[in-house]
Amino acid sequence: MNARPEDVHARIHNAGAVAVEPFQQSQKIYVEGSRPDIRVPMRQITLTTDEKVHVYDTSGPFSDPAIQVDLRQGLDPIRSSWIEDRGDTEVLNGLTSKYGQQRAQDPELASLRFYDSRKPRRALSGNNVSQMHYAKKGIITPEMEYVAIRENQKLEDVQDAGLLKQHPGESFGAAIPKIITPEFVRNEVACGRAIIPANINHPEVEPMIIGRNFLTKINANIGNSALGSSIEEEVEKMAWSIRWGGDTVMDLSTGKNIHETREWIVRNSPVPIGTVPIYQALEKVDGIAEDLNWEVMRDTLIEQAEQGVDYFTIHAGLLLRHVPMTAERVTGIVSRGGSIMAKWCLAHHQESFLYTHFEEICEIMKAYDVSFSLGDGLRPGSLADANDAAQFGELEVLGELTKIAWEHDVQTIIEGPGHVPMQLIKENMDKQLKECGEAPFYTLGPLVTDISPGYDHLSSAIGAAMIGWYGTAMLCYVTPKEHLGLPDKEDVREGIVAYKIAAHAADIAKGHPGSQVRDNAMSKARFEFRWHDQFALALDPERALEFHDATLPKESAKVAHFCSMCGPKFCSMKISQEVREYAENLKGMEEKSKEFTEGGGEIYRKL
Amino acid sequence: MNARPEDVHARIHNAGAVAVEPFQQSQKIYVEGSRPDIRVPMRQITLTTDEKVHVYDTSGPFSDPAIQVDLRQGLDPIRSSWIEDRGDTEVLNGLTSKYGQQRAQDPELASLRFYDSRKPRRALSGNNVSQMHYAKKGIITPEMEYVAIRENQKLEDVQDAGLLKQHPGESFGAAIPKIITPEFVRNEVACGRAIIPANINHPEVEPMIIGRNFLTKINANIGNSALGSSIEEEVEKMAWSIRWGGDTVMDLSTGKNIHETREWIVRNSPVPIGTVPIYQALEKVDGIAEDLNWEVMRDTLIEQAEQGVDYFTIHAGLLLRHVPMTAERVTGIVSRGGSIMAKWCLAHHQESFLYTHFEEICEIMKAYDVSFSLGDGLRPGSLADANDAAQFGELEVLGELTKIAWEHDVQTIIEGPGHVPMQLIKENMDKQLKECGEAPFYTLGPLVTDISPGYDHLSSAIGAAMIGWYGTAMLCYVTPKEHLGLPDKEDVREGIVAYKIAAHAADIAKGHPGSQVRDNAMSKARFEFRWHDQFALALDPERALEFHDATLPKESAKVAHFCSMCGPKFCSMKISQEVREYAENLKGMEEKSKEFTEGGGEIYRKL
Repeated sequence: MNARPEDVHARIHNAGAVAVEPFQQSQKIYVEGSRPDIRVPMRQITLTTDEKVHVYDTSGPFSDPAIQVDLRQGLDPIRSSWIEDRGDTEVLNGLTSKYGQQRAQDPELASLRFYDSRKPRRALSGNNVSQMHYAKKGIITPEMEYVAIRENQKLEDVQDAGLLKQHPGESFGAAIPKIITPEFVRNEVACGRAIIPANINHPEVEPMIIGRNFLTKINANIGNSALGSSIEEEVEKMAWSIRWGGDTVMDLSTGKNIHETREWIVRNSPVPIGTVPIYQALEKVDGIAEDLNWEVMRDTLIEQAEQGVDYFTIHAGLLLRHVPMTAERVTGIVSRGGSIMAKWCLAHHQESFLYTHFEEICEIMKAYDVSFSLGDGLRPGSLADANDAAQFGELEVLGELTKIAWEHDVQTIIEGPGHVPMQLIKENMDKQLKECGEAPFYTLGPLVTDISPGYDHLSSAIGAAMIGWYGTAMLCYVTPKEHLGLPDKEDVREGIVAYKIAAHAADIAKGHPGSQVRDNAMSKARFEFRWHDQFALALDPERALEFHDATLPKESAKVAHFCSMCGPKFCSMKISQEVREYAENLKGMEEKSKEFTEGGGEIYRKL
Repeated sequence: MNARPEDVHARIHNAGAVAVEPFQQSQKIYVEGSRPDIRVPMRQITLTTDEKVHVYDTSGPFSDPAIQVDLRQGLDPIRSSWIEDRGDTEVLNGLTSKYGQQRAQDPELASLRFYDSRKPRRALSGNNVSQMHYAKKGIITPEMEYVAIRENQKLEDVQDAGLLKQHPGESFGAAIPKIITPEFVRNEVACGRAIIPANINHPEVEPMIIGRNFLTKINANIGNSALGSSIEEEVEKMAWSIRWGGDTVMDLSTGKNIHETREWIVRNSPVPIGTVPIYQALEKVDGIAEDLNWEVMRDTLIEQAEQGVDYFTIHAGLLLRHVPMTAERVTGIVSRGGSIMAKWCLAHHQESFLYTHFEEICEIMKAYDVSFSLGDGLRPGSLADANDAAQFGELEVLGELTKIAWEHDVQTIIEGPGHVPMQLIKENMDKQLKECGEAPFYTLGPLVTDISPGYDHLSSAIGAAMIGWYGTAMLCYVTPKEHLGLPDKEDVREGIVAYKIAAHAADIAKGHPGSQVRDNAMSKARFEFRWHDQFALALDPERALEFHDATLPKESAKVAHFCSMCGPKFCSMKISQEVREYAENLKGMEEKSKEFTEGGGEIYRKL
């Protein structure tokens, strides 16, 4: 395809560059499944000892030097044949959505539009193409096999028992097997404890799974607002997000050209894309909440489903009776979707069209395999409002809706707070599991204090780590700009790494098998002063190197047995190594130790 | 006093400037106690609504525009008359420490030396001047009254019931009264559950208390290393630390002119200063651990006690029998003090002089009221080594030593880890309380993963918030440079704010009375779009403003009913306010709500 000179096509070619450079000592490998087109990517870190550590890799083809991603063509549709082979879908002649058709035909948008000859796909009439539907029928799809391989991170290859050492976890009812099998994945998806967000119109996606018996995932939000950002900036943010470890990306655009922006993002994203369709629906009625209606919503859902959005946030649990419950709140309704729907409900004196048309929404979801992310429109926006009647009242309705979605075999996750003091976090998790039949929980933080603007990524990472430990399956990141402004690239990086820390800490605390391998490799590298290996194993290898080099930039310092924090004489690691050598040369140390231990009791007094 | 032209005296005058500028809408006030020289500082934040919020203020005279701090003269010795009035101390003719005398007499050091006509003070023979000693005798000292007033933060003045709203805490056995009285303080100090670190030779200190029935405190580490930093830089770091909220500062210098550096810091610090005396002792024997001995240690303890250091980290719990327990560890011994003592013990085949001379150390401590911070020389340096036999074996010995210290009425806190996965954190707290008779716990983090270099302030703040909730009284900060290099000023700020978040979150979770006032004021300001008030109430007002202004710099945006994150149309707070107004105008909303609630059950189905 030839590049067209106009606008986005001319400007976008570099937007993926931010995700291209492999991290230090890292290369992309693929683990093949039962068929040659199941090729699961991993980042292989080769240590200076020649040991190899494999870690989960969200960065997609961008970081594979063998692949030159051309954003104007989009990524390779790796799932196409899996979808075709199932024989339960049809390729449509064109877009179903009226709005989509308008946009496609508008000559003025040509310069903004992703050029794609591919037509949308939909389930054949009467068919259900959701992964949950297959799972319930006992079918193990290639997607399920893919995520099983992916979750294992080649754990079975780890030979060094020292690297496998870890403390028993406290799992709060999660049941994580030692090795994840495709059958385990199928069963988890069948009973609703996990979802594989993978729209049939997003064949570019590298399948991943969200559920509390799998690795804890994180989501990064991107999207323009009325106050700024271009298509190429948003595509760049997506590529940047997956470089640092975003497992899914939500496009929350509320500004210009939402339709075209999303198309570019989906066609170039190897991770599932989520949206909040009500945002675009509101744009279509010029921002007047009262003018929203089921028809515009329905058209928007189909428009986005045919583009390939993998999950929709739907605020269907907010009912009329909940609204007065928010009157005494300190911060009212802080969910954008929630406040829009509350306004609509009040203006029309009736329950929202999301609620009354919920089964029709299910019909759309299952025709494309879009997953529900049932939105918590009444999540607390302050500690004061945490765990109140409005929040929990809505959660109970989300539980009812989950059961309806499952009757349609539609994959479902539940969104959660927000702002919650530490002592109230666990109650959120316990109630969600109970009300929603163990459907995966997907929380925003929660922030554990309200007074940390500028550092809300950090105060929310505290809550995120804890709720992740208790069983939350996916953590929606918060950036340092939360409550203050639109995040820039560095904010996105800070937010993602903060949440990778929270998610990883949660996996370790739950006792996820092998979750401590990377930590153990790091600790060994630390004790042996292998500085380059420490950088390579870090969640942010570039920053670790940069911070080390801020005081000791020379290459010779990368093998030095100290750092600038303590200097050579006071390095405990160095002295500790000397102690170890000394002790090994010493005869009778063991005896000495025994003698003292047997002495026991009030040792000090005896001396 | 005239400035002398040489070196430090000429260069240092600006080092305190970093702490001078008051935060937005803030002014220093003093609350007077039962005598006019008890004047407890607080930061009074005046909101645009004219409401006042009082917060704990660690920044000392620096941030009082009425006081011009002259670093060459040191701070006003506000406690002098309290100490004198007790009549149990004598002013010495000169320094007791031989090393101190040498340094004082060395003409080459004149240009580095703080000039002070004040002579050191010591307990009269046979007297004990510790706050614990007075407390046990039933005496309420001015220091005790001071901290009682300080801890209350003028809570009794808060009229707005909305600001006082908070959720019940989960305190794990902590028992925090609604209003802290001087008698409560006395009792807590008497039974060892809290300490007031306040050396009689540090009369400049603004008394503060460390204990789990009080606000959670944080410590910031400063200090030079062999690889750099000057006296004025360290004094500046101290001033900078207290600006951001450091409750105590540890001077961990291991580089040049440790004695003189410390003198400058103590004379200018309104917060307690802690040290690890073994670091300086090691310098005195040219860095050769084996050459350390009781005499050099004893002289160092007295040298530092007469300078006014308020607490000493003493690694007296590390015994010979523990050393072999570290042989199988992934990261050996990571405490600098611990590794030094382990090396000494092995080299001499005997228990450390810190352990064998522990009662003599107690005699020194009580003659100056220096508090013990019993060091955990065997704290884990990796998740793999957490909660192992070496760590807990040493903790048990620290428990025995605590009881001996208490027999001498020496105030004592216990140091804790380190690196600990989340599910093992509580065991640390529970064991510490049990073994050490509820002496305050003082932990470093703990980090909840090993793979976050560059972000260790964040991964450790997760552990710190949790262990603070469980009952840790003071949290030692970690900066983003941990494991990589010496922190600079921005790192210190990041580390302190991270730990203020953790400490504050812990206070809220424990249910500390009034701990949510500032959060509630922030949430109200947020809902009412009072941007300036949000900045003023933030833990880091400057960063909050800076981040907001990054996208909306105009003054008009400071009253706008939106921010750049969502823009005007999608601001949930704005819509939520509209919803509230709408609802208030609506008749029958309450009835509608009742009707729905009474309907109950499977509401969706009924529609």
